Amino acid sequence: MKFRSDNTAPVAPEIMAALARVNSGDAPAYGADEASQKLDQVFSKVFEREVKVFTVASGTAANSIALASLVRPWGAILCHSEAHIECDEGGAPTFYAGGAKLVLMDGEAAKVTAAAVEEAVARNARGIHSVVPQAVSITQATERGAVYRPDEVAALGEVARRVGLALHMDGARFANAIAALGCAPADVTWRAGVDVLSFGATKNGAMAAEAVVCFDPELAGEIERCRKRGGHLFSKGRYVAAQFLAYLNDDLWLRLASRANVLARRLGDASARHRSHPVETNQVFIKPGAAALQRLRDQGAEFYDWGAEGSGEARLVVSWNQADEEVDAMCALLASLR
Amino acid sequence: MKFRSDNTAPVAPEIMAALARVNSGDAPAYGADEASQKLDQVFSKVFEREVKVFTVASGTAANSIALASLVRPWGAILCHSEAHIECDEGGAPTFYAGGAKLVLMDGEAAKVTAAAVEEAVARNARGIHSVVPQAVSITQATERGAVYRPDEVAALGEVARRVGLALHMDGARFANAIAALGCAPADVTWRAGVDVLSFGATKNGAMAAEAVVCFDPELAGEIERCRKRGGHLFSKGRYVAAQFLAYLNDDLWLRLASRANVLARRLGDASARHRSHPVETNQVFIKPGAAALQRLRDQGAEFYDWGAEGSGEARLVVSWNQADEEVDAMCALLASLR
Amino acid sequence: MKFRSDNTAPVAPEIMAALARVNSGDAPAYGADEASQKLDQVFSKVFEREVKVFTVASGTAANSIALASLVRPWGAILCHSEAHIECDEGGAPTFYAGGAKLVLMDGEAAKVTAAAVEEAVARNARGIHSVVPQAVSITQATERGAVYRPDEVAALGEVARRVGLALHMDGARFANAIAALGCAPADVTWRAGVDVLSFGATKNGAMAAEAVVCFDPELAGEIERCRKRGGHLFSKGRYVAAQFLAYLNDDLWLRLASRANVLARRLGDASARHRSHPVETNQVFIKPGAAALQRLRDQGAEFYDWGAEGSGEARLVVSWNQADEEVDAMCALLASLR
Amino acid sequence: MKFRSDNTAPVAPEIMAALARVNSGDAPAYGADEASQKLDQVFSKVFEREVKVFTVASGTAANSIALASLVRPWGAILCHSEAHIECDEGGAPTFYAGGAKLVLMDGEAAKVTAAAVEEAVARNARGIHSVVPQAVSITQATERGAVYRPDEVAALGEVARRVGLALHMDGARFANAIAALGCAPADVTWRAGVDVLSFGATKNGAMAAEAVVCFDPELAGEIERCRKRGGHLFSKGRYVAAQFLAYLNDDLWLRLASRANVLARRLGDASARHRSHPVETNQVFIKPGAAALQRLRDQGAEFYDWGAEGSGEARLVVSWNQADEEVDAMCALLASLR
Repeated sequence: MKFRSDNTAPVAPEIMAALARVNSGDAPAYGADEASQKLDQVFSKVFEREVKVFTVASGTAANSIALASLVRPWGAILCHSEAHIECDEGGAPTFYAGGAKLVLMDGEAAKVTAAAVEEAVARNARGIHSVVPQAVSITQATERGAVYRPDEVAALGEVARRVGLALHMDGARFANAIAALGCAPADVTWRAGVDVLSFGATKNGAMAAEAVVCFDPELAGEIERCRKRGGHLFSKGRYVAAQFLAYLNDDLWLRLASRANVLARRLGDASARHRSHPVETNQVFIKPGAAALQRLRDQGAEFYDWGAEGSGEARLVVSWNQADEEVDAMCALLASLR
Repeated sequence: MKFRSDNTAPVAPEIMAALARVNSGDAPAYGADEASQKLDQVFSKVFEREVKVFTVASGTAANSIALASLVRPWGAILCHSEAHIECDEGGAPTFYAGGAKLVLMDGEAAKVTAAAVEEAVARNARGIHSVVPQAVSITQATERGAVYRPDEVAALGEVARRVGLALHMDGARFANAIAALGCAPADVTWRAGVDVLSFGATKNGAMAAEAVVCFDPELAGEIERCRKRGGHLFSKGRYVAAQFLAYLNDDLWLRLASRANVLARRLGDASARHRSHPVETNQVFIKPGAAALQRLRDQGAEFYDWGAEGSGEARLVVSWNQADEEVDAMCALLASLR
Repeated sequence: MKFRSDNTAPVAPEIMAALARVNSGDAPAYGADEASQKLDQVFSKVFEREVKVFTVASGTAANSIALASLVRPWGAILCHSEAHIECDEGGAPTFYAGGAKLVLMDGEAAKVTAAAVEEAVARNARGIHSVVPQAVSITQATERGAVYRPDEVAALGEVARRVGLALHMDGARFANAIAALGCAPADVTWRAGVDVLSFGATKNGAMAAEAVVCFDPELAGEIERCRKRGGHLFSKGRYVAAQFLAYLNDDLWLRLASRANVLARRLGDASARHRSHPVETNQVFIKPGAAALQRLRDQGAEFYDWGAEGSGEARLVVSWNQADEEVDAMCALLASLR
Repeated sequence: MKFRSDNTAPVAPEIMAALARVNSGDAPAYGADEASQKLDQVFSKVFEREVKVFTVASGTAANSIALASLVRPWGAILCHSEAHIECDEGGAPTFYAGGAKLVLMDGEAAKVTAAAVEEAVARNARGIHSVVPQAVSITQATERGAVYRPDEVAALGEVARRVGLALHMDGARFANAIAALGCAPADVTWRAGVDVLSFGATKNGAMAAEAVVCFDPELAGEIERCRKRGGHLFSKGRYVAAQFLAYLNDDLWLRLASRANVLARRLGDASARHRSHPVETNQVFIKPGAAALQRLRDQGAEFYDWGAEGSGEARLVVSWNQADEEVDAMCALLASLR
């Protein structure tokens, strides 16, 4: 029963097939190939407006390059204290942003609120002596599996605009969020004030396909240069493009994510009494105590401890390809916890 | 009644005289002059061991260059959330350290504890995904005017060594701390585990004289290169050296600082009921509420509000040259607060 | 007749098959999977000694991360003025190396000589005022298709060691070089003094597979952190690992490169009177003048102009999958040039 | 006979007096003092237009901060291969500019020509693969003592504008250049297309006073943040401001520089047969061979060798305070060279 992470899953067959199809004959390098040339158009359709898309090798790269386009080196990025950019990217965001700082905020379920943004800005208002907040970064779905509803993003977009901040969305699990919300991708992004989105596919069935989706045409040149400078411009661009084309074709991305979300909800229901967060997407957090977690492991469950050491909390992540039987078995185990 | 900051004070006459004396004839540039050549020796005497000293133009530069020698760009510096390097240096520390991050800790009177250090290290122990804590920076005296006793620094030095961190001390007000402690400078620095010290003189009577004092000979080359690269190697080195020679001569530094400390204690006594921190050096923190602060200002007192907006707290700083009469008058005002 | 570049070619069938094979079931993320775990061992066999291998998304990333491990931000990297790291990587090497500089050297066929290295070091020997040369980077095969023989690399390794420089090799076309030399990979790398090698596979049949091969165990930790910080640690590591395992299996890499080299030699023979460089690997340089190049294009040949604008020089690159008929046709065209 | 450099000279008495005068009572910190508040106005008068001035601790800082405001990290700065920013600043310009590169050009007497600029731009026109030239930096007077006439700067300004580059002037010896040209400072700066000027005073009689003079109001905010972030915002700003006010008062700067220029011309006349460059400002270059240089040294002359090792060339610099007798004696020595 493997619930460690959604990046342990294989590549979806539709995407493997697309890679095989595109592997024929010559193709111009560095994004001049036919598949790459379709990306802007396909993404523009998904987002119901013209966007520019820049593929990169990892979610860390997508976040870091996106943020670097939004802040100056003497600036600051506001984010939640549990944000991936703060906790899990080995310093990449500050590297790409030339030393700009991350300013941390707290909030339930790893969500950021407008009030927290205003407080963080006030905390850094010492004129020339402070770094200058220039962007907020939020994660959709969050590191605790929660989603921002369109009105919540819009509220953040509104405060951001008012205090002069750009708005970035880390969408490593954007598909799971959209599948959960059932809204148009536009509704939680540019319509709500998001300037740049990190759009992830790797965790949801791709091989290695992440993208910076740019809603502000003025940022595109900066993002393109920054990507090159980070070594993230693929010479054989067709292969990453093909992954995205298959992923977005015929709603594959939403189908894969929906399935994972549904299965996660089953795990959530089975562990209702120990859940430490509502289950909104494909992540389940339980807090039955260290001894109970050990019993789960003794019976074959695999997952990560979460929170501070000894917290007795754990995270279970459902992947796009998780077997129903595996979920059944895990549900039974969870239900057996007192 | 001016108590805004100790950097509004003029230069001490002994230091002005030294500048006049050194201003004669030619002198080799870039630290090869006679005055500069004496610095290591004079500081070594103050610290009772061989040290290397690197003068720079500001305390921000001293801190940033010191820290850059202690961490890698993928590393992190632990410091108090009110530390000058976090709040007041415009991002200089992360600039010089190539994007390394600051990890914040809390603690009474802006002091850091060994427990907080251990917690911060544990918080960043996600293997390749985390930044790597590599240094702790403490401020002596702190941003709240408190001092670390030798045993407190030694406890931090001990935990730092145990978990693999270097120890930096921001001594922008090192003179005030030593004057308060009455201990040997060595006792709260290298003997207690400090690797590099930012030694300030500007706030305590110099014109622009700050130095990185390096207790670990292996770091000296890195510091020297980093100083040059930051544009902090003065061509006419004799003038900054002369300031330090006068400052350290005949205990001028301690005399100036002692006087300020004594006067601050008088302010503290006069405001006993409103003091928000004990007065240990030349900074006084009071929290009589916003209305009371306004009354003080109406009667001619100058100082900065402190803490979050609307906190009703204020900071009063006594300078080396503060007039006794000014302190008398301020004491009377403070005593009049209900 | 397409001879623009070897990165326009598709992925070799053996490598596509390996990707399909590895795409089964769960696998631990971030390099803990079975395929990734074999990489060090397989590369160690190729290089006849223990090495550490770090896969990345592009040759630019491999070079930049390798070099960042060899120099300090106040250091300098010596390279040929036509080197890829100087001309074609959008500033990535100086980005990753924290602002360290590239110091340029000239030399026939884009090759660097020991004398040029010594001259460049002397040019930067102004003490604290200069940047400090700390590494030499050479390209194997060079940007002009030439190869360094083992004794040539050893001579560079010897001078590097003598003047205190590390030695980096950009092996974007390392396979073509080894196929041409017929020597052991060890002979032109660590046995000759190379500290770190950028080992490319993408141009020679992989999809996106480049690696930093580290011969100095002390550098491994730095490279690993720098890779993470650049966003080049793949979450689904098995897919890049599988490409390398197939590439190195049963000498596929050398077979593909040999074929390209042999075909290039035919082009070289056919254009003997216009060749501007000997043909040693899979790149052919001709200089028949602008009018002649236009005639070639009019008859369907595709290639890049080379050198300064209006130089009348061109580069033809043969790919691993170039059709024999295409080469035949191009040979006929080239032979027809007066 | 000391002719090593103009930064070995002491501080002019007028400037020492100004420092003494300003050293009275309290003054607001960080540039809010009265002297600092006059700087923009005084410089604006010198330059016959509104300018913003930012004082810093060294010429290296002035150049680096100025350039950082003109280029992006993926950009490039074009400069002469003998420029101070390339040869003598320990990598500071690339540090402050976030890793942007220096692209070198050659030219007589360390002067840059419009043709060289165009060639350097063409050399870096490989689209996304190249760094992007964004600024040209020229030195007035040059590292070989030559001056750019207004029409020469204007020609560079014209080509810069045409190809999209900003124009920076390193004026470490700006006073000597203006004294030599006899033109208005505006004529060789903003009227000729200069965007930002590094205005030096230290070599010409100040203690440590360098400034970034900004002719483009849009750059001012960036420069101010970058200065703070580099640790170059002095807390006691009045002392650096007082130096500049005295320096610019009553043409002191031009009187000091004129005197040095006149004395240098005498040295040049005395060494006419061995001069390797015309003497236009306060630097004299002679190339009498290594043996002759040794004879000069044996007779008490002090100066630096110049050019490549063993070139037999030397540089003599005249300072503002050079004694007439010292120049007489040196002239006699030089005249004695066969």
